[in-house]
Amino acid sequence: MNDDSISEIEHLIALMAKLPGMGPRSARRAVLHLIRKRALLLTPLAESLGQVAASARECLNCGNVGTRDICGICTDERRANGEICVVETVSDLWAMERAASFKGRYHVLGGTLSALDAIGPEDLRIPRLVDRVASEGVREVILALNATIDGQTTAHYIADQLEDQVQLTTLAQGVPIGGELDYLDDGTIIAALKARKQL
Amino acid sequence: MNDDSISEIEHLIALMAKLPGMGPRSARRAVLHLIRKRALLLTPLAESLGQVAASARECLNCGNVGTRDICGICTDERRANGEICVVETVSDLWAMERAASFKGRYHVLGGTLSALDAIGPEDLRIPRLVDRVASEGVREVILALNATIDGQTTAHYIADQLEDQVQLTTLAQGVPIGGELDYLDDGTIIAALKARKQL
Ligand SMILES: [Zn+2]
Ligand SMILES: [Zn+2]
Repeated sequence: MNDDSISEIEHLIALMAKLPGMGPRSARRAVLHLIRKRALLLTPLAESLGQVAASARECLNCGNVGTRDICGICTDERRANGEICVVETVSDLWAMERAASFKGRYHVLGGTLSALDAIGPEDLRIPRLVDRVASEGVREVILALNATIDGQTTAHYIADQLEDQVQLTTLAQGVPIGGELDYLDDGTIIAALKARKQL
Repeated sequence: MNDDSISEIEHLIALMAKLPGMGPRSARRAVLHLIRKRALLLTPLAESLGQVAASARECLNCGNVGTRDICGICTDERRANGEICVVETVSDLWAMERAASFKGRYHVLGGTLSALDAIGPEDLRIPRLVDRVASEGVREVILALNATIDGQTTAHYIADQLEDQVQLTTLAQGVPIGGELDYLDDGTIIAALKARKQL
């Protein structure tokens, strides 16, 4: 350290420390590791981040993350089976996809309704969900929201909006109370999906 | 996901998961966080990594990490005070610099001697340390190696190499400032007790 241009490395550490789960200490370790593995890790990571920065975007239809305006799931006709699975976050969508059991499409809310944080239906792609139910020939909406108070409040709100238009189901209990999808093993997700119940 | 070009994001997750302290789950979270914070974090991080990849190098003299062939500490004449502090890693050097108490120069070994891992003196910049002691007018070598078996073996080896040429010292062992006995390992407590001082 103590270089005139050391600020480059300090700057990198400061940015790395902003990643979830990282702090100043782990960011320093990560940066030293990267410098030691320049060819194997540092250069490839810099290039990969640049590519993703240039290409990653949210699907205009469902909120999934991909590299096109409309994601691969939304353009895949085999997944137009009349089922939409509503999740809070892209992490939850990825967790569902890893379980590889659900064959329909998704709708990523981007969070939950929250009076405290002043998050209303417009902030959550709920109007877009109502549109999709009408325009995509949806028969069933599976509300795969987290078993938190805000998650369940959001599920009830969506159910109120859609109750005369589609069959509404929710993941079976088996999802632990207070549990978040992203932390569940695949087997639990598969079992909960199979045993889903009418609301 | 499920894009044709989704492999870009998957590739980034795989690279992030190779960072120390990260796994597949935290890498996925980090990548989603980066995509959400594209302008604030993703693009700056990509640029910063690219700059560091292009400029970061190990100091040819001491093994510190910087952006020039000889680091700022080695070229700073005010730090030519006849003291060299020998550390295992650049992390340790940074920790010493944060403490802002040591005014001399460093020598980063890059690890410890290890029969098990076949790491010998040549792998650790020990010959370079012997050269520096002769050429830089060094009076004192402070062995700030970790209190592990390999660290202490390495300290003894270096002491054997240098014992007639310089004063050799080591960091005092004891209870850390603000440290609670209940949280310390037995070895530290034993060392602190042995080195106890009259009040
Ligand atoms: Zn989509
Ligand atoms: Zn140096």
